[in-house]
Amino acid sequence: MTEKLVLHEYAVSGNCYKVRLTAALLKLPLERREYDIMKGETRTPDFLSKVNANGRIPVLQVGNRFIPESNAACYYLAAGSGLIPTDRFDDADMLRWMFWEQYNHEPNIATLRFWMGWVGPDNLTDAQRLQVPAKREAGNAALKLMEEHLSARDWFVAGHMTLADICLFAYTHVADDADFGLADYPHVTSWIDRVRNQPNFVPMDA
Amino acid sequence: MTEKLVLHEYAVSGNCYKVRLTAALLKLPLERREYDIMKGETRTPDFLSKVNANGRIPVLQVGNRFIPESNAACYYLAAGSGLIPTDRFDDADMLRWMFWEQYNHEPNIATLRFWMGWVGPDNLTDAQRLQVPAKREAGNAALKLMEEHLSARDWFVAGHMTLADICLFAYTHVADDADFGLADYPHVTSWIDRVRNQPNFVPMDA
Repeated sequence: MTEKLVLHEYAVSGNCYKVRLTAALLKLPLERREYDIMKGETRTPDFLSKVNANGRIPVLQVGNRFIPESNAACYYLAAGSGLIPTDRFDDADMLRWMFWEQYNHEPNIATLRFWMGWVGPDNLTDAQRLQVPAKREAGNAALKLMEEHLSARDWFVAGHMTLADICLFAYTHVADDADFGLADYPHVTSWIDRVRNQPNFVPMDA
Repeated sequence: MTEKLVLHEYAVSGNCYKVRLTAALLKLPLERREYDIMKGETRTPDFLSKVNANGRIPVLQVGNRFIPESNAACYYLAAGSGLIPTDRFDDADMLRWMFWEQYNHEPNIATLRFWMGWVGPDNLTDAQRLQVPAKREAGNAALKLMEEHLSARDWFVAGHMTLADICLFAYTHVADDADFGLADYPHVTSWIDRVRNQPNFVPMDA
């Protein structure tokens, strides 16, 4: 890897942590630039024109090119490494969990964490407040699906740690921030410990 | 490819169409099994235990193994074909658009299409009804982002058609079903025509 890697991020975001964790496990140097999303720093004309027209972080900068979307940025970093299975089925199965994470897990668990911890329960709009019960139910359904899957195996796919584990770990291990009660999911809790025990692991607040 | 391919689907779903379109463009034989999601046919104990514990379609069956999540199924089918760039950056950039589709496009445009055309505007819950304006705004923002991106290029990444185009085409070309007014997005409209003119293209209702 010859091009410089820069992560445009908001450090407490689990989506940004995924990219840092992938880089750490692979011992890739990653420069970090912080933006305060609560102050709209990713919606400025400069950010929109130069970093990401979608106005979101994380964005991985590779030389002078940019990759938005956390899971795609992880895929770029891990290309050719043991974190991506070489088997065709396993590779697709890994992506299956990563797409599932963005569709069924993040919009429920991460969004409730953000609403409770950053926006504040008293500041939610009516539309947001009415979505809380459904997001709570869907978030628990996501954790239950993970629990069942992990009851029969140590890692999500391919018998070893892959990006599927990294991408799911990011918001799962802080699910208690949104009162999800991880203690009810013992196989998930054991898997969280396995991820934490990987060589070169870095915590979210590092 | 030696293993039999079976698509478990609900044919009018754009997510299922992505998989059919990918298979058609690559001339891969695909057996189809239809489930009526309006009758809960993907939430039966049999479906949950054998096809997808997440209770959703599409699921691509490869021999006796299963790949849920439309974009992951497309990735499996297209592995090694010209629909996936071999360049590391382009591959990740393609995935970036596919993750963006599932996070920023599908939950707005596809969900409004489903609510308007299948659930019915009068049958929405209060929580759903209050989300309509935000989903309308986010859906238009997604189309605007596509319009800007396509104003400078014919295809989303790599200078040729990839899975990013297929996965974005599925719900974009029927966005008028949810009153999005595609005529306001001329570059998107031209791109839709380009996709339709590809050899072996199949329409959604084929």
